[in-house]
Amino acid sequence: MNQNQLESLLQKVKQSEVTIEDAMKTLSALPFDDLGFAMIDHHRHLRVGYPEVIYCEGKTTEQVIKIFDNMSSRHVNVLATRASAVLYEAIKPLYMDAKYNEAARVITLTYEAVPMTDDYIAIVAAGTSDLPVVEEAYETAVAFGNRVEKVVDVGVAGIHRLFARLDVIRGAKVVVVVAGMEGALASVVAGLVDKPVIAVPTSVGYGASFGGISALLTMLNSCASGVTVVNIDNGFGAAYAASQINRL
Amino acid sequence: MNQNQLESLLQKVKQSEVTIEDAMKTLSALPFDDLGFAMIDHHRHLRVGYPEVIYCEGKTTEQVIKIFDNMSSRHVNVLATRASAVLYEAIKPLYMDAKYNEAARVITLTYEAVPMTDDYIAIVAAGTSDLPVVEEAYETAVAFGNRVEKVVDVGVAGIHRLFARLDVIRGAKVVVVVAGMEGALASVVAGLVDKPVIAVPTSVGYGASFGGISALLTMLNSCASGVTVVNIDNGFGAAYAASQINRL
Amino acid sequence: MNQNQLESLLQKVKQSEVTIEDAMKTLSALPFDDLGFAMIDHHRHLRVGYPEVIYCEGKTTEQVIKIFDNMSSRHVNVLATRASAVLYEAIKPLYMDAKYNEAARVITLTYEAVPMTDDYIAIVAAGTSDLPVVEEAYETAVAFGNRVEKVVDVGVAGIHRLFARLDVIRGAKVVVVVAGMEGALASVVAGLVDKPVIAVPTSVGYGASFGGISALLTMLNSCASGVTVVNIDNGFGAAYAASQINRL
Amino acid sequence: MNQNQLESLLQKVKQSEVTIEDAMKTLSALPFDDLGFAMIDHHRHLRVGYPEVIYCEGKTTEQVIKIFDNMSSRHVNVLATRASAVLYEAIKPLYMDAKYNEAARVITLTYEAVPMTDDYIAIVAAGTSDLPVVEEAYETAVAFGNRVEKVVDVGVAGIHRLFARLDVIRGAKVVVVVAGMEGALASVVAGLVDKPVIAVPTSVGYGASFGGISALLTMLNSCASGVTVVNIDNGFGAAYAASQINRL
Amino acid sequence: MNQNQLESLLQKVKQSEVTIEDAMKTLSALPFDDLGFAMIDHHRHLRVGYPEVIYCEGKTTEQVIKIFDNMSSRHVNVLATRASAVLYEAIKPLYMDAKYNEAARVITLTYEAVPMTDDYIAIVAAGTSDLPVVEEAYETAVAFGNRVEKVVDVGVAGIHRLFARLDVIRGAKVVVVVAGMEGALASVVAGLVDKPVIAVPTSVGYGASFGGISALLTMLNSCASGVTVVNIDNGFGAAYAASQINRL
Amino acid sequence: MNQNQLESLLQKVKQSEVTIEDAMKTLSALPFDDLGFAMIDHHRHLRVGYPEVIYCEGKTTEQVIKIFDNMSSRHVNVLATRASAVLYEAIKPLYMDAKYNEAARVITLTYEAVPMTDDYIAIVAAGTSDLPVVEEAYETAVAFGNRVEKVVDVGVAGIHRLFARLDVIRGAKVVVVVAGMEGALASVVAGLVDKPVIAVPTSVGYGASFGGISALLTMLNSCASGVTVVNIDNGFGAAYAASQINRL
Amino acid sequence: MNQNQLESLLQKVKQSEVTIEDAMKTLSALPFDDLGFAMIDHHRHLRVGYPEVIYCEGKTTEQVIKIFDNMSSRHVNVLATRASAVLYEAIKPLYMDAKYNEAARVITLTYEAVPMTDDYIAIVAAGTSDLPVVEEAYETAVAFGNRVEKVVDVGVAGIHRLFARLDVIRGAKVVVVVAGMEGALASVVAGLVDKPVIAVPTSVGYGASFGGISALLTMLNSCASGVTVVNIDNGFGAAYAASQINRL
Amino acid sequence: MNQNQLESLLQKVKQSEVTIEDAMKTLSALPFDDLGFAMIDHHRHLRVGYPEVIYCEGKTTEQVIKIFDNMSSRHVNVLATRASAVLYEAIKPLYMDAKYNEAARVITLTYEAVPMTDDYIAIVAAGTSDLPVVEEAYETAVAFGNRVEKVVDVGVAGIHRLFARLDVIRGAKVVVVVAGMEGALASVVAGLVDKPVIAVPTSVGYGASFGGISALLTMLNSCASGVTVVNIDNGFGAAYAASQINRL
Repeated sequence: MNQNQLESLLQKVKQSEVTIEDAMKTLSALPFDDLGFAMIDHHRHLRVGYPEVIYCEGKTTEQVIKIFDNMSSRHVNVLATRASAVLYEAIKPLYMDAKYNEAARVITLTYEAVPMTDDYIAIVAAGTSDLPVVEEAYETAVAFGNRVEKVVDVGVAGIHRLFARLDVIRGAKVVVVVAGMEGALASVVAGLVDKPVIAVPTSVGYGASFGGISALLTMLNSCASGVTVVNIDNGFGAAYAASQINRL
Repeated sequence: MNQNQLESLLQKVKQSEVTIEDAMKTLSALPFDDLGFAMIDHHRHLRVGYPEVIYCEGKTTEQVIKIFDNMSSRHVNVLATRASAVLYEAIKPLYMDAKYNEAARVITLTYEAVPMTDDYIAIVAAGTSDLPVVEEAYETAVAFGNRVEKVVDVGVAGIHRLFARLDVIRGAKVVVVVAGMEGALASVVAGLVDKPVIAVPTSVGYGASFGGISALLTMLNSCASGVTVVNIDNGFGAAYAASQINRL
Repeated sequence: MNQNQLESLLQKVKQSEVTIEDAMKTLSALPFDDLGFAMIDHHRHLRVGYPEVIYCEGKTTEQVIKIFDNMSSRHVNVLATRASAVLYEAIKPLYMDAKYNEAARVITLTYEAVPMTDDYIAIVAAGTSDLPVVEEAYETAVAFGNRVEKVVDVGVAGIHRLFARLDVIRGAKVVVVVAGMEGALASVVAGLVDKPVIAVPTSVGYGASFGGISALLTMLNSCASGVTVVNIDNGFGAAYAASQINRL
Repeated sequence: MNQNQLESLLQKVKQSEVTIEDAMKTLSALPFDDLGFAMIDHHRHLRVGYPEVIYCEGKTTEQVIKIFDNMSSRHVNVLATRASAVLYEAIKPLYMDAKYNEAARVITLTYEAVPMTDDYIAIVAAGTSDLPVVEEAYETAVAFGNRVEKVVDVGVAGIHRLFARLDVIRGAKVVVVVAGMEGALASVVAGLVDKPVIAVPTSVGYGASFGGISALLTMLNSCASGVTVVNIDNGFGAAYAASQINRL
Repeated sequence: MNQNQLESLLQKVKQSEVTIEDAMKTLSALPFDDLGFAMIDHHRHLRVGYPEVIYCEGKTTEQVIKIFDNMSSRHVNVLATRASAVLYEAIKPLYMDAKYNEAARVITLTYEAVPMTDDYIAIVAAGTSDLPVVEEAYETAVAFGNRVEKVVDVGVAGIHRLFARLDVIRGAKVVVVVAGMEGALASVVAGLVDKPVIAVPTSVGYGASFGGISALLTMLNSCASGVTVVNIDNGFGAAYAASQINRL
Repeated sequence: MNQNQLESLLQKVKQSEVTIEDAMKTLSALPFDDLGFAMIDHHRHLRVGYPEVIYCEGKTTEQVIKIFDNMSSRHVNVLATRASAVLYEAIKPLYMDAKYNEAARVITLTYEAVPMTDDYIAIVAAGTSDLPVVEEAYETAVAFGNRVEKVVDVGVAGIHRLFARLDVIRGAKVVVVVAGMEGALASVVAGLVDKPVIAVPTSVGYGASFGGISALLTMLNSCASGVTVVNIDNGFGAAYAASQINRL
Repeated sequence: MNQNQLESLLQKVKQSEVTIEDAMKTLSALPFDDLGFAMIDHHRHLRVGYPEVIYCEGKTTEQVIKIFDNMSSRHVNVLATRASAVLYEAIKPLYMDAKYNEAARVITLTYEAVPMTDDYIAIVAAGTSDLPVVEEAYETAVAFGNRVEKVVDVGVAGIHRLFARLDVIRGAKVVVVVAGMEGALASVVAGLVDKPVIAVPTSVGYGASFGGISALLTMLNSCASGVTVVNIDNGFGAAYAASQINRL
Repeated sequence: MNQNQLESLLQKVKQSEVTIEDAMKTLSALPFDDLGFAMIDHHRHLRVGYPEVIYCEGKTTEQVIKIFDNMSSRHVNVLATRASAVLYEAIKPLYMDAKYNEAARVITLTYEAVPMTDDYIAIVAAGTSDLPVVEEAYETAVAFGNRVEKVVDVGVAGIHRLFARLDVIRGAKVVVVVAGMEGALASVVAGLVDKPVIAVPTSVGYGASFGGISALLTMLNSCASGVTVVNIDNGFGAAYAASQINRL
């Protein structure tokens, strides 16, 4: 509620157009539904067609279904991340139109098509093993209405593979770089383009990769300017931030 | 060199407008100067007025001066970060127009004013102790031609202080959040605005803050979407990325 | 045994009201039973109705049953934490009145109702995935005779959800805050109430949450005063300490 | 502002006892002063005699003096922690009544005596080297109006020293345990008393104490119930939380 | 081969009692059998009755059986640690006299009884969950011919339980202390006895116990003198070292 | 493309022996195949008989089969590492000549025998549990055409076992040392030979071996000169580097 | 106080040989002096000639002097560790007979010569840089009446240096091994002797030695049996434990 | 001593050409000098002209001078690493020919010129701040008789700078890559050359570079084959290993 709305509300109270009781309700009311175990936040649906997001990890199947029910009753698009195949099996009979990207572990349910951007997000990945994170980022970006170009398996061990796709990367408005192991790809890409680069370390690797710490540190210490970083394997978060930039 | 330039060059070779020798030079030549201990990259000066950047930490005073000399000979703006007061004392007599922001540890030398953006970057900081990082970000953003609004000492321990300045933060095109200790401010801000939030953990704190690790982890694990993170105390990097977004 | 009791005992020895043999027994005897693999401590049952606590993790089913047998023979209430469903299946036929909270992984066996406090403990949780820890804290607090109010899914990403429930939180005598991921909720709550806040980091999260380290560090570094912290996922410990305060 | 105050304000707007302009000011105004680099929060002075707290680490002398000036202009008591001797030298000439506890690194400035509690906080410390943290906790507790008993150098290596002082510890309403090295004292004390125990790990030790991590982990993993933990060397925080409990 | 043996050998060479060929063999020969995948070291069987030790973790069942075969062919006692129940099932039909302590995960095969010491090793453990490590230490100590007294579930949360058994602990020649969680027991015991204390941290615990790191650091930082430490869960190693001391 | 080739190409363009179109193709073309999810790099097959390498971890069976198909269509040898038995079951029916070393988890498919070196690589291992890493290194080294000698179970606990095989180790051109637990073998070997030593820490161990960190740090800190280190369990990487040296 | 003493005391109470008041004093009295900031424990002086120990780190000069005064008034020997040269300068004028080993940072003050053992402790060190820790161990062992043999600079990089001194090491009753960097010496020595080996990791090294963590982990993971470990740089602790064993 | 020498010695004993006493001396004698605090190993001087190496860190000036004296008395070349300027000031008057490379912190004293190799080692560095490590590697390589080419400031942020110098790098027999911050250069170089790459992480960086851990992990996890790694800042070790390879 901004200053204008506040002034207007108080004017109406003064002129008895709004009762004190109603003004109190308005000043106290908050835009969410309380399911007991979860507070569903409707801020997002104020923007037409934007999906609401469910992070499924650590929620029971029953809880996810109830959240689906609440959201669907308002006919908003749904994007459910970290959704296991088992969970999807439980959702599918109830929501026939729900789609599942198994690699991404993402369920999408679309009531209203989101208009696509002209600009695109480039999602660049070092290796084949990084594909699950690429797919999570892809599904997220598309669900939020972004055109996306994927460039995969262009890790720095064979840098000519990266150069062959450089035009696609340079054409993007914002670049998401996904890499595990030593995660050097983010620095190299950021050194070659002049766009914001959002780096996603992945847990791909073994031994001293420590579940993604190696790639995470690499990206945080990038000697190339313009790199910002999200959590390990957080394809969703990178795509969300990229969408905010791409839609500016 | 893009495809068109390549085609044009080859055309000229064929038509003997360019000698093979010259074509070879062009195809091999690279846009930097080799000072022996440093390779100065002139890519940036191709964009009018942009500063070149020197990261001073770990360089001797002699090395920094030589880099200043090289850059200044081309009359490009210079932004020197992590510059000690001692270093500035050595630069000042040689470059009278060089300015020093002591809190920021930044030297700037401006030959040509950079046109300012209409949109602005909000730099939001949790505490007074975070000011050095705020100032490094501020100097960087301004040097790259961005309008900036600073909002400081609005940490989550007294969240009403943050709300009082929310309008300024929401008006920005991109928000930089600077916080040490537990670094919770980034999550709270990202939950309140719908703009890209670039989080800078600082080394402010003691004990289990582990020189900024606590704030870094907090920001990487933000439950609020749209937060990306840079290295601990990396005000420069945050401002650089914010500038890329703000100037889109 | 305090000074008065000691003096009284020695008096009785002197006046031959107590034999030396008995005095030695008293001075040596200690209030516990030795089961061979476990020493059961009866200190607690001296306070009427208080439960005895079994931490089941790492104990065999046989061992837990024997401890149940020992405790039940004295008709004291039992609170068994970290109890798997399999363990409960083994206990149930032997102790028909034993109740199981599956989310909490807690078995309770009540011989005598514990009188409830008028003051209440507020248990505040950031997300739905934190519910198992909330439930462990809830069962513990109730078993120790505390009134409890639960406020869940009020994480800082949507801070208006927290504000909507602030009255409930502010009404408590002591507040337990449960949060995973970046764990920022503890700082925000402590900044809004003037009561002791006991923070429980949870292992909810992935990647750089490092199994709860991120939330743990956040809480230890809270910029808001009045926050104390227990081990990751330690709902029991938080509720125990909260009970000590609530019953003062 | 609670519901009653809100209703009352709206009533007055309706009855034109308060102008819309003034109501807007009230609804927007927030209880702090903006010094540019710091927002001073006056919430605390609403409670008579309570000190305002300055965390001096990372603030310049100039900044601390300006905060002193602001606070003193309102004649509230001041508690400045992590204050170096050099800082005190700068404060002393301006505020002759300011007192300095060098071991504690605390400056106190008292305009109005705080009434003392009858109940007391016991501050128990393992070794002589932990004294600076003990003193910080002591100064804080006293400044907030708590009676305090100190029990020092009672580490578990000579547990009879602890037993000799057990009566003093057991008589407290809340116990603060300060220990470095292996930090085992907190567990032992919590096993012997039935009061809330707030544990402060200290950075005392060397090698694998890792600047207090060893003691921190010990305290977080305490097998004795009722132990909550604050940051390494955070005597202030422990005393603040203890004060909240002691004054209940 | 010591100086005397060398002199004697050379004498015999000189006096042609030993051929140069044989002397070379003796000087080169080494006391082990090469199984291809393992070198079995017979040093130990030179001392009558001492067992040879197999660390089974990471060895295939086939490999362990071949090592058993080699050892048994020489009729030496065998102690196999970290042996799974599955492995024992494979050994049992081949070596009917092999015994299995399931909690300890130890197989023993005794051809010749080892004479027992008069002095004893006390194995003291904090909790019931530490029993597997206690049992591994116990089986090892007994296999090496040591009398052992076990004192379990005497953790510092109820220190009176420890005091009740202090006589048994003080009577030992060397004390092994086994504890997980915060591992404080080692310090307390070492403060109460004047014998060498060998501390074994266990992986018992959760959250910030980090798989035994907490207890390990506690023990390394013990403020009580005379504590030495072995690897997490290394009951074998502690008993081996204790046996070396007990048999002095 | 080196300078000579570039000059030659440009000559041909000038002399119209090569069309501009073709020159552009040549200058842009890059030696890899794009399978959509993977870019196969053919650089290696330029050297006769060298295998191409597939790192199977994190790839689906379908992806690995497609890469096999692509490689096999060019009749190059294939070396697939980190291949599960399940994966091999899927490969075997399609490529009857594919061989599987189960301990090594390596599949090899040989179209053309690689000529063997005269010099050999010594692979020295501390314990039987290190064999899987030894085997991965062995298969890799052999696939790249190196003669190999294996020396296993010669850990420093029985250093005479190492000395007995020293001649074999000293005869090698380069030595690979494989060790887990404390990893001391690398230092000892490097102190005894004057050849490059490549150390491979393994994840063999428990407790404070932290999945190989202990051995890794030991090897990085070797007081013996000439030791370089690869990732934990990286038998492939060590053998690859050793092959580069052995074939010099 | 043991059972016999307790019985005797109670007998005397009964027979009025001891007043209740005195019995209470005896039962409550504890053998230490309370200096306010330190509790001095006189247990040790019950054994003739044994020194009392002051750990000087973190104590002020004033505090150390007061402890010296207290101890000296009882004419017991004093061993002060981690004593800076500055501290010694303050002690020397007051206690002319106090001696300082600068490398060891140890002050000793001997009132009564301690009888020396026949058996000796071998202190074995890897490098010259480890000498300060060797000296601390040496001074401690000698102060406690142990004969000591030092064997230094015998690190595993040149293992023949170790073998040359093996007789001295094997002749000891207990061996202390001091090593930094990779700390492999402990394993090698333990593999060569059949005596208890107490390993002291030192902070000697750089980079990935992480202040002694590397050596610490090496020693904890020793593949040779019979190694126990003390804290990084804890020469005192190793010598104390060795003395307990050597004097058995 | 090899088999032939052993046989020959025994022959001489038999034929009384060598006395038993002398044979014993020979079999026991070891090629080092014992200075009391250091054992100087003369193995190296057996190879003409090779320097002996002193690691100066942690040694007193007196100790270093004594080692210089011992070495110089045998007229062997000396290479002293980690030598402070202060140390050099003490050496210079005694050894006028000693040379000091201040950036490298290396003192060299050459009695006999070492013949140079034809092949060369390329030392490639990411940034100007890495120069001290480059120089340590350079001095070491040259002292061991290797031709060296340095390529500096070619970090991946401006990858065209690296490509411009690729010919020099590809011409080397072995490549040393020195990089701090994210350390990505090693992977990129290893992907572009087919020579052994020895990677040296440096402590250059701040925040999450954690004193070189970031670069270290990057290099250990390199997705490019053929990379082996040495300790952080270990220019000496990298050059030593490179020399072993270059001189094959």
